[in-house]
Amino acid sequence: MWGIELNRQSDIPLKRQLYRTLRDWILNGRLPAGETLPSTRSLARDLKVSRNTVCEAYEKLIAEGLVSNHPGASTRVADGLLIEKAGAASLTLSEPPGPRYVVDFQTGQPELRQFPRQLWQKTLYRAAQKMPLEQFGLSGPQGLLPLREEISGWLFRSRGLNVSSMDIFITAGATQALHLIASALGETGQTVLVEDPCHTGMLQSFLNRGCRVIPVAVDRQGLKTDELSGPPASIIYITPSHQFPLGGILPAGRRAALVRFARQNGSYIVEDDYDSEFRYSGDPVAPLLAMDSEQVIYVGTFSKVLFPALRVGYVVLPRKLHPIWNERRTYTDVQNPPFEQVALADFLQHRDLDKYVRKMRRVYADRRRILLQTLQEGFGHQWQVWGDAAGLHLAIEFPGLLFNPEFFKQCLTRGLRIAPVENYCLRKGQHLNQLLIGYGHLEAAQIRQGVRLLQEIINHTLN
Amino acid sequence: MWGIELNRQSDIPLKRQLYRTLRDWILNGRLPAGETLPSTRSLARDLKVSRNTVCEAYEKLIAEGLVSNHPGASTRVADGLLIEKAGAASLTLSEPPGPRYVVDFQTGQPELRQFPRQLWQKTLYRAAQKMPLEQFGLSGPQGLLPLREEISGWLFRSRGLNVSSMDIFITAGATQALHLIASALGETGQTVLVEDPCHTGMLQSFLNRGCRVIPVAVDRQGLKTDELSGPPASIIYITPSHQFPLGGILPAGRRAALVRFARQNGSYIVEDDYDSEFRYSGDPVAPLLAMDSEQVIYVGTFSKVLFPALRVGYVVLPRKLHPIWNERRTYTDVQNPPFEQVALADFLQHRDLDKYVRKMRRVYADRRRILLQTLQEGFGHQWQVWGDAAGLHLAIEFPGLLFNPEFFKQCLTRGLRIAPVENYCLRKGQHLNQLLIGYGHLEAAQIRQGVRLLQEIINHTLN
Repeated sequence: MWGIELNRQSDIPLKRQLYRTLRDWILNGRLPAGETLPSTRSLARDLKVSRNTVCEAYEKLIAEGLVSNHPGASTRVADGLLIEKAGAASLTLSEPPGPRYVVDFQTGQPELRQFPRQLWQKTLYRAAQKMPLEQFGLSGPQGLLPLREEISGWLFRSRGLNVSSMDIFITAGATQALHLIASALGETGQTVLVEDPCHTGMLQSFLNRGCRVIPVAVDRQGLKTDELSGPPASIIYITPSHQFPLGGILPAGRRAALVRFARQNGSYIVEDDYDSEFRYSGDPVAPLLAMDSEQVIYVGTFSKVLFPALRVGYVVLPRKLHPIWNERRTYTDVQNPPFEQVALADFLQHRDLDKYVRKMRRVYADRRRILLQTLQEGFGHQWQVWGDAAGLHLAIEFPGLLFNPEFFKQCLTRGLRIAPVENYCLRKGQHLNQLLIGYGHLEAAQIRQGVRLLQEIINHTLN
Repeated sequence: MWGIELNRQSDIPLKRQLYRTLRDWILNGRLPAGETLPSTRSLARDLKVSRNTVCEAYEKLIAEGLVSNHPGASTRVADGLLIEKAGAASLTLSEPPGPRYVVDFQTGQPELRQFPRQLWQKTLYRAAQKMPLEQFGLSGPQGLLPLREEISGWLFRSRGLNVSSMDIFITAGATQALHLIASALGETGQTVLVEDPCHTGMLQSFLNRGCRVIPVAVDRQGLKTDELSGPPASIIYITPSHQFPLGGILPAGRRAALVRFARQNGSYIVEDDYDSEFRYSGDPVAPLLAMDSEQVIYVGTFSKVLFPALRVGYVVLPRKLHPIWNERRTYTDVQNPPFEQVALADFLQHRDLDKYVRKMRRVYADRRRILLQTLQEGFGHQWQVWGDAAGLHLAIEFPGLLFNPEFFKQCLTRGLRIAPVENYCLRKGQHLNQLLIGYGHLEAAQIRQGVRLLQEIINHTLN
């Protein structure tokens, strides 16, 4: 069956070998989304193993959300994770927005054309020039102190946070932060609670570590904390300042409930604050970290603010995790290179980052306004907006519509890249009338053209 | 006992919780090297768990080499791993050679003072200048093509290897390469065969992944392939071009035996070619990769050649591992930053690297000659050299001497940093008369002073 090869001489149990082969094939796309797995009976017969072996492998795949099975239906490869892999924000493989799409509403894409390249280039040059010779050697897993001090100042200026540079750890971006958290705290079979929908790509580190990922529903205000329950979770992964992808800000009551739940269960809260630099009205949202620095691990990044290839992020860690973090980072990739660290510290020290964020906030707010206005003109009362006025994308709902495969096929044909919220759902079927529109990287004309295309496709396929 | 806390409500078995707590404490230094673990009986009583639970946790620690137990003796925290952590080459935490040591014979330290900083700085500036705008966005987990093409050329020029840029994957250094290999191929309970002694820090990724590490003895020629046996291993980790730390070059017969063994057992050979740029006599050693590109994963780095903080290495991967590698890299830290990649490609294209390696080969060969001569003058027939004329350190043996704790205490007192080969051994007690001298970063005067100090300490404590 499919050329699955099991090694009976191996010290790895057959069920584990089978699970691993199928998992790898799903993750690398050899088994595409929606593919039906053979029945346990027929696969067991073909592989000459007990049916129990196949059942256990399948159950593990189901538990990890890699395949779905509904009573009475066949077992299929889940489509959430894979479409994510091909289409999602920060994890897309090499595929610059090109002529393949007429309009690309991909989420999580900052505008690169307005980035002050020359200033950065000079800053990088100065950084290499003034670096003490020792920094050409290893300078430690925590990251350079001047950068950590500047980030401490930045957290205060941008979010009102009081954090010591001692508790800040530089990472090679937010993805690595999640990877290291999974490596330090995750363990086979442990439970990780996540928002549903969420940035499913960010869960991969937990899945690769063998954790069980349990979805908790999200509404307009973010995580529904009254649905927190179940076995004690090691980790709760959440985006409280701007829920990804639906955009809610977690209200104070839910924040308190969440922290209480985490304390009672000894869970760590992983707070991913991926884009709160870009709020277009009201004060900055105070991070959860301000409520509890013992249970909350705060994850920040400069990829959205500056440019994705920078690969510099940071975590704010509770003291008791410092030793294990340093150990894991040392044996993962030792440290960040120093040049970007020194340059970024400079950029922060001279308030070049503050200036750039102020400028881009205006640019993005403008684009958002144009998008909302164009949607209003095109769809009248047919649609609603979700979430807070923040970030680089918009979640919109069309009550009564169902975005079906025919719709997305038409989008592809017409050159419109647009993702359904459904792509980011672990439990399928709850968000079928919602779409995500990434607008950060698009000029006004492209936004208008995209909405026109969307309108034509909706009229053509759904009305 | 020691404040160990077990959570009886957790879905993680108690033995696993206990194992994990002890492992973390050993790795973060809370349980120092040599510390005696309580007897299984007394710990079981104190924690109110079955003795079996404690035994299983201890057995896992023993299997991973974290604690040692000899029949009739108490169970103690192994000292190999920990001294390694504090003292070894590429994994040292922030601790530049400073006034703490009068002479620092640490291994794996390249000379930084002769690095052409200005040239590198200009190259970095040019790289940032000519980078296409897309490269400020994500450019993919495999690394930039121009760099991979230059590395392909470099592998041919420096080692006679014919490797396609398609099979080269850029990493954030050799440590990350090992980490990703463990992540892609390692699985709890799987077997990894390693040289003994070896760069024990490099094993940490396998241990963190839950693999069983099994030592295979090394003699003057490298891995004793006639001792390869045991359960099928997933991975064989080896340094055939210049065994670390003893310096042997694996002879052709053993190479063939190793590849045969790997093919028969379906094992991958991880070939760590950490310093073969620096050979001072004879032709370059042909890597194992030349014998088998299906079973061999080749790991290279530029940290030793240029400077440790660069964080650029690479692997040459068998085709069937490409998809899983890209998946793991994407969810580990996405990609390297582009600036160093473009700058290094430039450095290679203009043959600046070739020139620098030629220059440093002369510098290091000189230092090696001075070290050997000074040792000869100081110790006459009392000592022997091990290994090939290559690299940045020397393994030496003093037949009949035993370097005891008193000796190393005296070294510390007198300000001499020098490591016993024993630090890198998994099975203890076989290499007690051998020392490692890192000389790459030391001027002639420092080398002579270090040997004088060594002579005084040996005379004082051992003769």
